[in-house]
Amino acid sequence: MSHLNFITKPPQASELGDGVILIYDKIFQKKKFGLKKWLSGFDYKYGVKSGEPLKNLKAFPSHIEEIFKLIDKMPSRKLTVVALGGGSIGDFAGFTASILKRGVELVHIPSTWLSAVDSAHGGKTALNLGPIKNQIGSFYPASRVYLVKSILMAQPTERSFEALGEVLKISLINGGTLWNKVSLISEPTCEIYWKLLPDLIKAKTKVVTKDPFEKKGLRQILNLGHTIGHIWEIQHKWPHGVAVLYGLAFSLNWSLKRRLLSSKDYYSIILSPVGSYLPDQFELRKVVKKTKKMDKLLGQDKKATTNSELNYIFLKKPGSPVRKKVKVNELVSEIRALRS
Amino acid sequence: MSHLNFITKPPQASELGDGVILIYDKIFQKKKFGLKKWLSGFDYKYGVKSGEPLKNLKAFPSHIEEIFKLIDKMPSRKLTVVALGGGSIGDFAGFTASILKRGVELVHIPSTWLSAVDSAHGGKTALNLGPIKNQIGSFYPASRVYLVKSILMAQPTERSFEALGEVLKISLINGGTLWNKVSLISEPTCEIYWKLLPDLIKAKTKVVTKDPFEKKGLRQILNLGHTIGHIWEIQHKWPHGVAVLYGLAFSLNWSLKRRLLSSKDYYSIILSPVGSYLPDQFELRKVVKKTKKMDKLLGQDKKATTNSELNYIFLKKPGSPVRKKVKVNELVSEIRALRS
Repeated sequence: MSHLNFITKPPQASELGDGVILIYDKIFQKKKFGLKKWLSGFDYKYGVKSGEPLKNLKAFPSHIEEIFKLIDKMPSRKLTVVALGGGSIGDFAGFTASILKRGVELVHIPSTWLSAVDSAHGGKTALNLGPIKNQIGSFYPASRVYLVKSILMAQPTERSFEALGEVLKISLINGGTLWNKVSLISEPTCEIYWKLLPDLIKAKTKVVTKDPFEKKGLRQILNLGHTIGHIWEIQHKWPHGVAVLYGLAFSLNWSLKRRLLSSKDYYSIILSPVGSYLPDQFELRKVVKKTKKMDKLLGQDKKATTNSELNYIFLKKPGSPVRKKVKVNELVSEIRALRS
Repeated sequence: MSHLNFITKPPQASELGDGVILIYDKIFQKKKFGLKKWLSGFDYKYGVKSGEPLKNLKAFPSHIEEIFKLIDKMPSRKLTVVALGGGSIGDFAGFTASILKRGVELVHIPSTWLSAVDSAHGGKTALNLGPIKNQIGSFYPASRVYLVKSILMAQPTERSFEALGEVLKISLINGGTLWNKVSLISEPTCEIYWKLLPDLIKAKTKVVTKDPFEKKGLRQILNLGHTIGHIWEIQHKWPHGVAVLYGLAFSLNWSLKRRLLSSKDYYSIILSPVGSYLPDQFELRKVVKKTKKMDKLLGQDKKATTNSELNYIFLKKPGSPVRKKVKVNELVSEIRALRS
């Protein structure tokens, strides 16, 4: 897996290797981020606008052409793609690195908490095919990931909140002292995230290394809260992390109803300080009422008919996620039950 | 590496797996190939025109859109891309399989001797960026390769000749009984290729498994005859196999001049029955005289200035290729010396 570097200031271009090409979020050209001088240290760089449109397959050939114009000017034969940005930039730059000359070195410098905790690790890269996310991609872990305190601490609080869903998810999957620490968070701040970051990454890496190419199904436990979460993310145009919070609440409820999760454990989660960020039944119901064509969406996304099965991740207790086959019908009924 | 299947007739769609999508050379729709009925056994198929334009990155998004239209109709969640065709189709379909949903199963059915001997093995996939070949790609070996006698034997003789360069190259690299057998070929026929095919593939696989991602340089010995060969291929629009024959002749000459290859071994190669297919000094000179801007091309292709070094593959004797750093200048002088 990737080598992790926890540092206070961004690494200099010269430290990053030979033939460095920086793919970065254009937003960092703004003076307020204090990275202008640092950026000027890179002779070959490509600024992009973050967000899902960057990942559109149709736009990809012209991005690659621009990137090759830079490569043609570079004296080095070796190439290292360095990605500075959040999830969309990591996905785009990671995919680019994986197919340039059949694969060049990749370095991630995640700039959002969500990417620092989750997407910069585990090697998933992706492009979108029209509205359908992540249909194109590769498994291509970065050789190095730099976790840069000055960049991450500069995130506005509302953006740090976006990471909470993934923080909760991975700590519930991991259990143990990580969950104990996370359960006690009464207010998610950058300081707390920074302190927890090494353990959060370790917890994800532990799962990924058992099944790096998602072949054995073991990696699917990372989908806890995501099956429904993804649908709400699309339908309500929510930030990913918020959708995952709702998805987690739904999955915990369902785990309780199926008696996979005991009442004691269920309440120990939702009544813990961090549990207050999980939407309650009332909030879930509000969202469910606005959810349309759920079965159709599930069918489209997962190649499932209402009668076909999908893998759903339940929680038995913190540290014990479990994968079970459920019929799309069952999932839709569960959602409908919440409405009434 | 890939599982090899030597069979007399093409495998039925049902044998190939669940969720099969066939990417095939349109030429096989023609009655004379006798594959029309076989093709009709595939519910999901995508016919393409072979050749380098297929590998153009700019055209790639629209190909993928068409392929996803088929995938959307497929009932299976599992996907297997089956490629029927020569090198360009293998490169295109292999790249496609490597990035669809982060990688699906890939099966090759090479239809030309060149692809049966060489490109279907070793996992290189590629697209082109404008005129520059194979700038985009992945290492993605097929899980299975079917070598189908009826398809390969239907190749016209002139197309079987195109494979001779690679056949000679791999047997010179391998040495031993394979080289002994190949050296005795006085007329390359489909029958001979079919008989030699398992050993030719084994010889390539032996090199590839030592360095599957071309990281250690060991795999570069497969470039014997290719450094110059590629340039002539582009400049004279030659078939790849013919360019490799000229490239091999050039490399054997240079190996002799550098006293890496003994006169005895040199003449045992060029005076063997198969050696008559290697262009002689007179033919090489004719080609060299028409070669323009050699240093510029070398510089462009290999990111080298005239003073910088590239890895060149020499032959010490059959079975003993050797990689040496040479300056672009030296290579250009060697070519100029041939002119005078």
